[in-house]
Amino acid sequence: MLDIAPKFNALLVFIEHRFYGDSMPFGNNSYKSAKTLGYLNSQQALADYAVLIRSLKQNISSESSPVVVFGGSYGGMLAAWFRLKYPHIAIGSVASSAPILHFDKITPRSSFYDAVSQDFKEASLNCYEVIKGSWAELDTLSTHEDGLIEVSKLFRTCKGLHSVYSARDWLWEAFVYTAMVNYPTEANFMMPLPAYPVEEMCKIIDGLPKGASRLSKAFAAASLYYNYTQTEKCFNLEGGTDAHGLHGWDWQACTEMVMPMTCSNESMFPPTSYSYKEFAQDCKKRYGVEPRPHWITTEYGGYRIEQVLKKFGSNMIFSNGMQDPWSRGGVLKNISASIVALVTQKGAHHVDFRSETKNDPDWLIMQRKQEVAIIQNWLDEYYKDLKQN
Amino acid sequence: MLDIAPKFNALLVFIEHRFYGDSMPFGNNSYKSAKTLGYLNSQQALADYAVLIRSLKQNISSESSPVVVFGGSYGGMLAAWFRLKYPHIAIGSVASSAPILHFDKITPRSSFYDAVSQDFKEASLNCYEVIKGSWAELDTLSTHEDGLIEVSKLFRTCKGLHSVYSARDWLWEAFVYTAMVNYPTEANFMMPLPAYPVEEMCKIIDGLPKGASRLSKAFAAASLYYNYTQTEKCFNLEGGTDAHGLHGWDWQACTEMVMPMTCSNESMFPPTSYSYKEFAQDCKKRYGVEPRPHWITTEYGGYRIEQVLKKFGSNMIFSNGMQDPWSRGGVLKNISASIVALVTQKGAHHVDFRSETKNDPDWLIMQRKQEVAIIQNWLDEYYKDLKQN
Repeated sequence: MLDIAPKFNALLVFIEHRFYGDSMPFGNNSYKSAKTLGYLNSQQALADYAVLIRSLKQNISSESSPVVVFGGSYGGMLAAWFRLKYPHIAIGSVASSAPILHFDKITPRSSFYDAVSQDFKEASLNCYEVIKGSWAELDTLSTHEDGLIEVSKLFRTCKGLHSVYSARDWLWEAFVYTAMVNYPTEANFMMPLPAYPVEEMCKIIDGLPKGASRLSKAFAAASLYYNYTQTEKCFNLEGGTDAHGLHGWDWQACTEMVMPMTCSNESMFPPTSYSYKEFAQDCKKRYGVEPRPHWITTEYGGYRIEQVLKKFGSNMIFSNGMQDPWSRGGVLKNISASIVALVTQKGAHHVDFRSETKNDPDWLIMQRKQEVAIIQNWLDEYYKDLKQN
Repeated sequence: MLDIAPKFNALLVFIEHRFYGDSMPFGNNSYKSAKTLGYLNSQQALADYAVLIRSLKQNISSESSPVVVFGGSYGGMLAAWFRLKYPHIAIGSVASSAPILHFDKITPRSSFYDAVSQDFKEASLNCYEVIKGSWAELDTLSTHEDGLIEVSKLFRTCKGLHSVYSARDWLWEAFVYTAMVNYPTEANFMMPLPAYPVEEMCKIIDGLPKGASRLSKAFAAASLYYNYTQTEKCFNLEGGTDAHGLHGWDWQACTEMVMPMTCSNESMFPPTSYSYKEFAQDCKKRYGVEPRPHWITTEYGGYRIEQVLKKFGSNMIFSNGMQDPWSRGGVLKNISASIVALVTQKGAHHVDFRSETKNDPDWLIMQRKQEVAIIQNWLDEYYKDLKQN
C-alpha cells in the first residue's frame, strides 16, 4: 500500500508518534514519571499531526494540496480519529486493522482470543484441539517434583526456567502473533515467518506422531514462530527485553487505551476472566495513576457507530482481514457511501499496507486496487471543489 | 429560545465552563499562574462537556436520549465545535452569533468595527459622521492646558480623569456594545437599554443643536448606554472593575482565542493597525506565555469551511443577526442540507436565545420557529434510526 505514493505523485510522510522512537519530548526523562508521561496520549499525538501537517504544507508551499492519512493497528485508530477530528486537515483516511471498537463494552471481551482460536480451528480441528489440550498438560507437568526441569528440557531453554508461566506465555505469544500475521506470503513483521504460518504450525502439529504429548506438539508449533530460520539452538523464555519495543504502549494501555479481554471456554486458551479492579491496581502500582476505561469512547465514540456516522463524516476506509484477531474490534460494515469497510476473509493484520510482492493473491491485489480507486475519487472531488471556489 | 425545552419535553442543562463562575479547578488559586491557567482552554471545556453529558445521561438512565447543544457568542463556538468533535454525544448544535471564522486571516481584520459603523450609518448618516468626527475633537481637547478638566466636565465624571484615553475607551465601549445588543425589544443584557438602541442613540445625536460639538453629542449618545435608567448622577470612567466579568477571557484571548482586529479609514473609529508583536509582548508580560495565533484554525478549522464541511458533518445551525458586529466572523451561508445558516438583517448578538416577549417582531418569531423545526427534524431522524437498530 505504501507503494501508492508514486501512483498519486504524492509526498509520503511518516510521522513519528511522540514518546516513541526518537520523539522524546523530555529526552531521557520522558518515561520518568506520570508527570512527563501525561503528555503521551492519543489526543496529543493527533494534535501533533495537525500542527506538523499544516506547518509542512506551509513550508513547501503546498497549502492547497490534499492530505490523506494512513495507519495500521493503533496507527489505524489514529488515522480514523484524525479524519473525524481534523477533517479540515485530512480529506480522507485509510485505517487498516484499526480496532476502534475494542473499548468499553462495545465488542465482546472474548472476541479476540476466540478469533485467534478460529484461525487455528479453520486450519485444522485437530490442531486447535491439541493446543487447547496442551495447557492442562503444562499445568500437570508443573506439579511434578522436577516439573521446571522437565518443562525446561521440553522447551529447549538455554537456561533452566524459574517459572512455568514463562513457558505458558511463550506459547501464548507465538499463537497470538502468528494469527495476527497469518499473511499469504512470507513475511518478517514480528518474526520471519512462512506464508500462512497458522497453516504451517498446524501442519507441524498434525504431522507429529499420535503418541506424542499435546504439549510437545504445541512446543513444536510455537518453535516455527521463534525459529523459522532454524538458527536458534536453544530458546530464552525468560528475562528477555520486550521484543516488540512497546514500552510507551504499556503506559497508554494503563491510561486511555483500556481494552478488556477474556478467554472463553470455546477458545483454545485457558479460560480467563477480566478483573478491572486488578488491572487498575496494577496500573496504579506501576505508574501511580488510575486508568480511564471510558475515556476513548467518550473522546472518539464507538457505541452505535453506524448511526452516529451515517450522516456525519465521510471519506474513510476501514480495512480488516478476518484472520487478524483485532478485526473483531474493527468496523466491518459500510457505514455510508463514503465511510466504507473493506473486509477480506484471508487477510491478516494490516496486510494491505505491506509492500507488493509478486506472490500476492488476487484478493489482496484487488483490495489495494479498491483502496486506490476510492482515494482517487476523494482527490477528484477535492480538486473539483477547489476549482469551483 | 431557551423556552424550547418544554416544547421538546427536554431537560435543559446549563454547563458552566471551567474557570468561570464557581467552576474553579484550583479554588482561589485557579488564576494564580500559567501553570494553573493552562487548563483554561476550549478543548478542555469541550472534553468536560463530553464527560459531563455522558455521566449525566447514565445517572438519569437516559443513555439513548438525544442531546442537542446550544450556545451563543463564545458559547456558540463551543456548541459548533462540540458537534464537530463529539458527534457521538450531540446529535446537533445551534450556534448563535458564533464567530468561528474570526481567527487568523479568514475574516478581514477591519470587519468588526466596520460592522459597528454600518449599524450607526444605517440608523443615520449624520450620526455616523458625528461619532467619526468626535475622536479628533477629543484629541484636540486633550492638548489644551486644562484638557483633562474640560473632558472630565464634559463627561460628567465623578472624579477628575487621569487620562483622556479613559474617555475614549468609555465612548468606544458604549458604541461597540450597543451595536452588539441592538435588539428589537427592551433588553438588559450588558446594560438596560431600549429597543433598537443604536437608533435611539442616533436620535439623541440628530436631535441636538447643530452648534453643539461632536464630542458632546457623542457623549450624550454614550450616556444612553451607561444611564438608560437615568439613575447615574455622574460617571466613573476610571478604575472600575470589568463590568462584564470576563476575567478568564483575558487569558484565553492571550493564548488560543487570538482575534486580530483593526479599524479601517471607513469606520467611525480612529484608524488603528494591528501589531501581533505588541500583542504577543503584552501577553508575555501579563501571563508569561506566548499566544498561539494559529491554534484555533489548526484545531477546529475555518479556512475553506464550506468545502471542508460540504461532505463532512451534519445537523448544525449557525444563526447570526447582521446588526451584531460579530456576525462578520460567523457562518453566513448554508454549507449543506443539514449545516445551515439562519441570517436576520435586523438581528443582534444571539437575539434568538433571548426569552420570548410579546413585542417580538415577526422575523424573530419566524427564526425561532425555523430553529425548532430543524431541531425537530434531527430528533425525528434520530428516533427513526434508533427504532431500526
